[in-house]
Amino acid sequence: MQRFALIGAGFIGAVHAENLAANPSVDLVVVYDVDLSRARALTGRFGGRPTDDESDAFDPSEVDAVFVASSTDTHAAHLRRAADAGLAVLCEKPLAPTLAEATEVVEYVEASGIVAMVDFNRRFDRDHAHLKRIIDEGGIGAIELVQMSSRGPSLPPVDYLRVSGGQLRDQTVHFFDLCRWIAGQDPVSVAATGSVLVDPALTGFGDVDTSVATLTLPSGALVQIDSVRRTGYGYDERIEVMGSSGLVESRRQSPGNVSQYSSTGIVSTGLYAGWFERVRPTYAAALAAFVTALETRTPSPAPLRDGLRAQAIAEAATASLGSGRTETVVY
Amino acid sequence: MQRFALIGAGFIGAVHAENLAANPSVDLVVVYDVDLSRARALTGRFGGRPTDDESDAFDPSEVDAVFVASSTDTHAAHLRRAADAGLAVLCEKPLAPTLAEATEVVEYVEASGIVAMVDFNRRFDRDHAHLKRIIDEGGIGAIELVQMSSRGPSLPPVDYLRVSGGQLRDQTVHFFDLCRWIAGQDPVSVAATGSVLVDPALTGFGDVDTSVATLTLPSGALVQIDSVRRTGYGYDERIEVMGSSGLVESRRQSPGNVSQYSSTGIVSTGLYAGWFERVRPTYAAALAAFVTALETRTPSPAPLRDGLRAQAIAEAATASLGSGRTETVVY
Amino acid sequence: MQRFALIGAGFIGAVHAENLAANPSVDLVVVYDVDLSRARALTGRFGGRPTDDESDAFDPSEVDAVFVASSTDTHAAHLRRAADAGLAVLCEKPLAPTLAEATEVVEYVEASGIVAMVDFNRRFDRDHAHLKRIIDEGGIGAIELVQMSSRGPSLPPVDYLRVSGGQLRDQTVHFFDLCRWIAGQDPVSVAATGSVLVDPALTGFGDVDTSVATLTLPSGALVQIDSVRRTGYGYDERIEVMGSSGLVESRRQSPGNVSQYSSTGIVSTGLYAGWFERVRPTYAAALAAFVTALETRTPSPAPLRDGLRAQAIAEAATASLGSGRTETVVY
Amino acid sequence: MQRFALIGAGFIGAVHAENLAANPSVDLVVVYDVDLSRARALTGRFGGRPTDDESDAFDPSEVDAVFVASSTDTHAAHLRRAADAGLAVLCEKPLAPTLAEATEVVEYVEASGIVAMVDFNRRFDRDHAHLKRIIDEGGIGAIELVQMSSRGPSLPPVDYLRVSGGQLRDQTVHFFDLCRWIAGQDPVSVAATGSVLVDPALTGFGDVDTSVATLTLPSGALVQIDSVRRTGYGYDERIEVMGSSGLVESRRQSPGNVSQYSSTGIVSTGLYAGWFERVRPTYAAALAAFVTALETRTPSPAPLRDGLRAQAIAEAATASLGSGRTETVVY
Repeated sequence: MQRFALIGAGFIGAVHAENLAANPSVDLVVVYDVDLSRARALTGRFGGRPTDDESDAFDPSEVDAVFVASSTDTHAAHLRRAADAGLAVLCEKPLAPTLAEATEVVEYVEASGIVAMVDFNRRFDRDHAHLKRIIDEGGIGAIELVQMSSRGPSLPPVDYLRVSGGQLRDQTVHFFDLCRWIAGQDPVSVAATGSVLVDPALTGFGDVDTSVATLTLPSGALVQIDSVRRTGYGYDERIEVMGSSGLVESRRQSPGNVSQYSSTGIVSTGLYAGWFERVRPTYAAALAAFVTALETRTPSPAPLRDGLRAQAIAEAATASLGSGRTETVVY
Repeated sequence: MQRFALIGAGFIGAVHAENLAANPSVDLVVVYDVDLSRARALTGRFGGRPTDDESDAFDPSEVDAVFVASSTDTHAAHLRRAADAGLAVLCEKPLAPTLAEATEVVEYVEASGIVAMVDFNRRFDRDHAHLKRIIDEGGIGAIELVQMSSRGPSLPPVDYLRVSGGQLRDQTVHFFDLCRWIAGQDPVSVAATGSVLVDPALTGFGDVDTSVATLTLPSGALVQIDSVRRTGYGYDERIEVMGSSGLVESRRQSPGNVSQYSSTGIVSTGLYAGWFERVRPTYAAALAAFVTALETRTPSPAPLRDGLRAQAIAEAATASLGSGRTETVVY
Repeated sequence: MQRFALIGAGFIGAVHAENLAANPSVDLVVVYDVDLSRARALTGRFGGRPTDDESDAFDPSEVDAVFVASSTDTHAAHLRRAADAGLAVLCEKPLAPTLAEATEVVEYVEASGIVAMVDFNRRFDRDHAHLKRIIDEGGIGAIELVQMSSRGPSLPPVDYLRVSGGQLRDQTVHFFDLCRWIAGQDPVSVAATGSVLVDPALTGFGDVDTSVATLTLPSGALVQIDSVRRTGYGYDERIEVMGSSGLVESRRQSPGNVSQYSSTGIVSTGLYAGWFERVRPTYAAALAAFVTALETRTPSPAPLRDGLRAQAIAEAATASLGSGRTETVVY
Repeated sequence: MQRFALIGAGFIGAVHAENLAANPSVDLVVVYDVDLSRARALTGRFGGRPTDDESDAFDPSEVDAVFVASSTDTHAAHLRRAADAGLAVLCEKPLAPTLAEATEVVEYVEASGIVAMVDFNRRFDRDHAHLKRIIDEGGIGAIELVQMSSRGPSLPPVDYLRVSGGQLRDQTVHFFDLCRWIAGQDPVSVAATGSVLVDPALTGFGDVDTSVATLTLPSGALVQIDSVRRTGYGYDERIEVMGSSGLVESRRQSPGNVSQYSSTGIVSTGLYAGWFERVRPTYAAALAAFVTALETRTPSPAPLRDGLRAQAIAEAATASLGSGRTETVVY
């Protein structure tokens, strides 16, 4: 049984609280939030003690592991505190607003020797994980071409976007991680192209809403990632990997399986309307993998350094967007 | 808030307990089982008071509704007791081992005026319900031909089958109900054909493991239902309805969406290995529909009499299996 | 090189003329029709000598094989004439209007020793043939359940239907043959149910437009065939075979592969509008198989007797439609 | 009736001869080849007079239109000769080995006023054309992102590749044309990345076998094209266009529709083994469109200048491959 403290009781904190409560190997003992009433709302439904005193969440006599689901600017501080207390930590991404800060905190945490994981939940998507298993077992030979689509149904609020760091750092970063994880290689260079097609306001702060990044792996394999903020047809996520002897695809997902035939065609259930329902099961699966690592004393399924590397690719991609050149990734 | 007593803490009782605990409009107050330790196992996880005193479950001062998930031979007694206490009741099917007993208890309960529902959970399958909605909105015109497949992955234990009443009463009965529900018509006649292809032991008690039933609706529309106890490829459930202007299909369901392309073909995720994972969400949806009916004082979404009618079709189908003749259904 | 005479220059004769002309092992030497101008229309496009003198088509010094594509009531006479002349013969189905006449002519032709084939073209459908290959190679184990759908887009003219012999003899007979061919077994009994849902005029001559037949094979395996004269969504043909270890399906066919995603669903290319485009390639494939049999001196890929057996099943099915009983098939 | 001369009786010439013979509005009168025996082989099967005298093919008293299917280095000369003779011309691509030569001949032909078409046959693929129709009718709103895959099953002979001009000029050029044609816009810039993953010999002459090109349209819409010389799973061609309100896809094509279900997954018919069977119907469709333009005196469905523009994009893409920069396309 692993005793957990949850840091942060906002939207994503509530998702994690529900998964912590449902995991049979987890005891949710503390929920911390600067706003005590928010913490209380979660402990009322999922158990544990609410607190607005941060030190309650980092008390090694009561807690084995900390789940950091607070706002991005406080991640680094909470990671350090977990390291100081010798507690295992599962942390939402990104680890820090800038790559420099993130690098600093990762080195700090690594020095402490605690088990730490960045919550790259998409690695735990059932279909993506199945795709990787097929590749790892040699099902398609050596990887030669990867395509990933990351397409949200609607533009997030412009106020959110303004401070997000840009589409490649905020949205595509998940897929930069998937790329490394699936291929087992660190991209050497990246070329990115982007446009503002949805809301001209993005131009004001140098962001784009539709972009394409092409990465080159050390083996020469190529990776294409398209990122779209607003589709007209729901949430669209898809991975396709071509190897020397075959191809494997984690297909678009629909929440239903109904088809209607008429003289004008066949109409089938569309894609998920939003990203959350599609992605929801991955949070519980990521948590379960972290808990298993703790119980079996095996390495973190997503070391903090993986978060750094994904951020490094995002930096190079963002630079390429400006320069119109292929940029080398500096890890 | 509806206060519920759960009667029966076996496998299916545990499923219902979890759904009762998760439904925000339900307060699970009592779990009754003849074996108190089984009741306790559920209340420990899902809340409520365990008891082996049946009268605790039918106390109107504490309970608004009873969920009957006990063994089949006690359903009738529990239904009567709920009627006597004036409690709403949601009951597992079948209502009683024989049609005669079922008819008697349904009339008793109807006379009492309580809200009562038979747990025809497949009506609440997201895809089947979507299919019905399309039909009800005129999407395919008048129904002309219906096909339903009910195919389990493996033969249930022969000891279970021996007392099950036969494949048509035990397995196909769910689809007899779906047929009535989808078409909004009561079949007038049925012809059934069956074989023993999996285990010759079934011949000893007159059962079959593979069968086909053809029903005729009052409109002349035809319905084919195939029932298979053991496929070699997982759990296979599928409904197709052809109307005068189109066709709608609730397709086979896979738990994943991965496809692998090679020179020998395209391999995609197969069907669910078992029936339970496929059908699981329907239990919570059926419960939610019952609770909504209670809260909005609207009619039962599956009156007990619907259970009777499905049983009547099963009787006629079973008779046809023996006679080799098309048999009229007597309601 | 096989020298062919074509008997009959109507719609289906023109289809065969085109295939004869395109087959590199065939020399189309004569086209016979009672109406010389129709014969001429074909020889103008596809070569050969037009004639309205039947004896030209059965002259062994000029002709090796005869393709009988004349009207049904003359098939038997042309078959006998081919037998008398010692010519190989490929004949459109049915062999004769009644089972008795058909039996007589088959015995006559068999006695002559010529190579004769009934044009069961659906056996040569690429997908159906692939399905059979998988079954024959043991891909699904022993056959347990077969489903076939035969659904035309629109009701043929009532004048045609009046003399067609009824839906089971006219339409379903192709699938009775497919059933025998796929399973490699002769059905022992059949139960059929039918309705008039499209045009009440059919009631006047005892026909139906929507029907279901259930056949039992000697192994106990069950076969369902639905036959529909008028769908609202195009031409729909589909075969599914379940065995003891798996299932194989020759799926519905679309003439295109376009999908459109929107917020209301995914719209894909519908089915073929008519039967002819869907079935067209099977005629050339059937001819090619016949020619190969001639050239390699191997047995007919569809002996005339197979035509008889399919007709015998149709007779029993038609009887069942009237009696409401399962009927034994008499071969 | 349009009288055609066919120039070139090699592999692709034979394909065109068959289509010319089958087109009811075409009279194939002359087949020219420097090797008279090759011309004869075609006229023997498809009609017309064989010749090795080029002037027979450009005689306006006998010929209305010329189909140029000769070797690439003679295309320009044949185009000029058709222009001089005032004959309509349908020409295989590319129009000339270099963009400069191609520009020169296009201007020469345009000045002559003849109807001229470059044989961009993929525009006439049934599914691609359907996709374009949906877009043109506003089915997905304004184009925002296009993805095209061009993937051959096996590496062409290295001797062919050595003189092909490189993957982007030789293979991707078809898709540069499709991009312009679908979007109705001329790309302003292109960035390309490529690798040698299949045969190191390509490095010797600066070619790649796996590449990705990203184009930017004047509207800001982005286009990704991946080009692969050797898949391990057959011929793979696919177009996907996302617009402001939806997405449309011309899907991968299989030559069959069989699915086999087992406990380990669902195996379906794979892709076409080679490009030719997949693309074959487009040649006849392109010819038909040309003939229709002649008969109805409407503009060429693919003016020669379109060939130039596609070549211009290929030049810029090839330059980007070397420079690592986004390159502007110069038309």
